[in-house]
Amino acid sequence: GSRSANQHNSELFTLTYGALVTQLCKDYENDEEVNKQLDKMGYNIGVRLIEDFLARSSVGRCQDFRETADVIAKVAFKMYLGVTPSVTNWSPAGDEFSLILENNPLADFVELPDNHSTLVYSNLLCGALRGALEMVQMAVDVKFAQDTLRGDGVTEIRMKFIKRIEENLPAGDE
Amino acid sequence: GSRSANQHNSELFTLTYGALVTQLCKDYENDEEVNKQLDKMGYNIGVRLIEDFLARSSVGRCQDFRETADVIAKVAFKMYLGVTPSVTNWSPAGDEFSLILENNPLADFVELPDNHSTLVYSNLLCGALRGALEMVQMAVDVKFAQDTLRGDGVTEIRMKFIKRIEENLPAGDE
Repeated sequence: GSRSANQHNSELFTLTYGALVTQLCKDYENDEEVNKQLDKMGYNIGVRLIEDFLARSSVGRCQDFRETADVIAKVAFKMYLGVTPSVTNWSPAGDEFSLILENNPLADFVELPDNHSTLVYSNLLCGALRGALEMVQMAVDVKFAQDTLRGDGVTEIRMKFIKRIEENLPAGDE
Repeated sequence: GSRSANQHNSELFTLTYGALVTQLCKDYENDEEVNKQLDKMGYNIGVRLIEDFLARSSVGRCQDFRETADVIAKVAFKMYLGVTPSVTNWSPAGDEFSLILENNPLADFVELPDNHSTLVYSNLLCGALRGALEMVQMAVDVKFAQDTLRGDGVTEIRMKFIKRIEENLPAGDE
């Protein structure tokens, strides 16, 4: 085992996350609904996590989507999951990119049972990214494009910029 | 914020654990049942975590319950939660002790709503300790004796030694 101390500490987290997904699979009728719940829970987590992230990372406002991509991969993923995905597959317009995870800490020791072939096991991450970015006035669409748990060679999270969210200025302040 | 990098990384874990407890509170009728589910999930986690723990900590078989207490506090809690509880309140017979947590990483930013005053929020830890120790042939009773979430000054996990579990030797091997 040459895993770092950081990955090591994440084992309890990984197993706890597994317990959450297992519970949701018991609670909801189909994978589609579980995926939705994980995304929703992730959103609520992202909304709370962003404050901690901004306070501790001392990252300022990103100038563009390319900078946002780098901060997510090199600072946020590193900080919270101990891994640094690569940023790749940019769309020509520069409004979409992929995060490629060689190793997904949430999915260590996980195998999807045959009857859950459409489960997006780590979907909480998509929700967390969406929630966190919404708090810095950036609406994005986030989804898993590939997943090693479903037999793909890598795990790929696809992020698409939708729009800047107007900050709600107090009435009379414009 | 003077929290260490280790505690820092645990924020996503803390929020994910919160999502799990929230989900269980939705699923089950009363706190008693949620406490039971958390303990059960923790047990399953402990059973899986022990292998990783023994492999990485290079801790050998403990000679007695006092040594077990020290390993849990100084190695296991440090490794998986980034905190080192103190070991105290030994029973005269040496079969019971308490782990005192000044700071419980699972309960950061948590406040129990009034209608969940009997929820043992971090009960997963009790189950995990019970499951892990059972795998090294030690039956223990584990429960929260105090909890800052319920207004106590500290968080106290009380552990009681029940018995050594006989290893099942293969037939004819005795």
